[in-house]
Amino acid sequence: MYPVISISREFGSGGHSIGEKVAKQLNVPFLDGEIITKAAQESGYAKELVEEEGETTSAANKWFDISAASAMYFQSPQDEIFLAQRKVILDAAKKGPCVIVGRCSDYILRNAEIPCMTVLIHADMPHRISRVLDKYGDITNVDVRKRIRKKDKQRRTYYRYYTDQHWGDYQNYDLAIDSGSLGEDTCVHLICELAEKMAKENEAAEKKIQES
Amino acid sequence: MYPVISISREFGSGGHSIGEKVAKQLNVPFLDGEIITKAAQESGYAKELVEEEGETTSAANKWFDISAASAMYFQSPQDEIFLAQRKVILDAAKKGPCVIVGRCSDYILRNAEIPCMTVLIHADMPHRISRVLDKYGDITNVDVRKRIRKKDKQRRTYYRYYTDQHWGDYQNYDLAIDSGSLGEDTCVHLICELAEKMAKENEAAEKKIQES
Repeated sequence: MYPVISISREFGSGGHSIGEKVAKQLNVPFLDGEIITKAAQESGYAKELVEEEGETTSAANKWFDISAASAMYFQSPQDEIFLAQRKVILDAAKKGPCVIVGRCSDYILRNAEIPCMTVLIHADMPHRISRVLDKYGDITNVDVRKRIRKKDKQRRTYYRYYTDQHWGDYQNYDLAIDSGSLGEDTCVHLICELAEKMAKENEAAEKKIQES
Repeated sequence: MYPVISISREFGSGGHSIGEKVAKQLNVPFLDGEIITKAAQESGYAKELVEEEGETTSAANKWFDISAASAMYFQSPQDEIFLAQRKVILDAAKKGPCVIVGRCSDYILRNAEIPCMTVLIHADMPHRISRVLDKYGDITNVDVRKRIRKKDKQRRTYYRYYTDQHWGDYQNYDLAIDSGSLGEDTCVHLICELAEKMAKENEAAEKKIQES
């Protein structure tokens, strides 16, 4: 059985697209926009608000203990959305192999002790700019840089706020790959290759247990 | 043709052993201890001194510009050894595909604009302790932790001193892998897989150029 794959990504590195291709190749569910929709349904907030707040936090300087969240008297809308997204991620992972992009999924899965494969996709600025320009062609080069920096900052802050860890620390990932230097297809290939290898090892371990 | 592969590694992560296996599997030269010996011969320093100083620097707070090195009136023995090692690395890389472990080789190759594949091998502390204990069985658990921390610090300082960059920044690597969670063989497999893919892409690109 394939592992649950959590993909963290820099904005403009193609992480979403790579995740989608991996899910397709391995024939497992893909959770990205879907997380947002499901979390919206669970939390009772409008889908649009969840999309807006899904990876941001308005209280950047306050640290937040997830385990204590349910015991808190006051929860901000962002906190409730985070918890709703967390539930969606854990429910999906418990059902079986899938690919989950962003939303602190690496931390959430590790913290819940659900075995998973954690991947970080990054790229240098020229590649990221080029990709963002391809996707949102109607913005200027200066605006793209600003947008990339802002998105990076939002994600770092969101991650820091809800995990109390530093986003992008290589030690948090089984595999960190440069989609700029390697290209999207090679990244997909490496992730699938690792998933196949892990699946084989899991099966061999299970067989050994059954035989003993 | 395979790329030149530069492997950076945390002490106790098995980077040396992984690099050696990759070189064997791809049938290309492996440079680790060999760098030390050759650099020693070039610099005129005794092999023992180069081994001792090969990845340390006694002037941790001073920044050093490599490009200006040859123009400097005073060079410390460490600087001379670094430059000798740098020459060995560049000479080897210019000859053809090889695997080079440590010694700022990622930075040296990038800086000289020699195409290469950069890899970082890391592992969590329990895996590193276990590996170091296996290798140097005659030290205590406390001593192992101290040794790992000291070696990490030495390598970080050495890298920072000679490259003015932060060691272990994921953006410096095409591929960063966790040998603790994945195991040595999977790391070897992933690196070789990527090298094969790069070789095929290089060949396809060269063929296209020849045909046009």
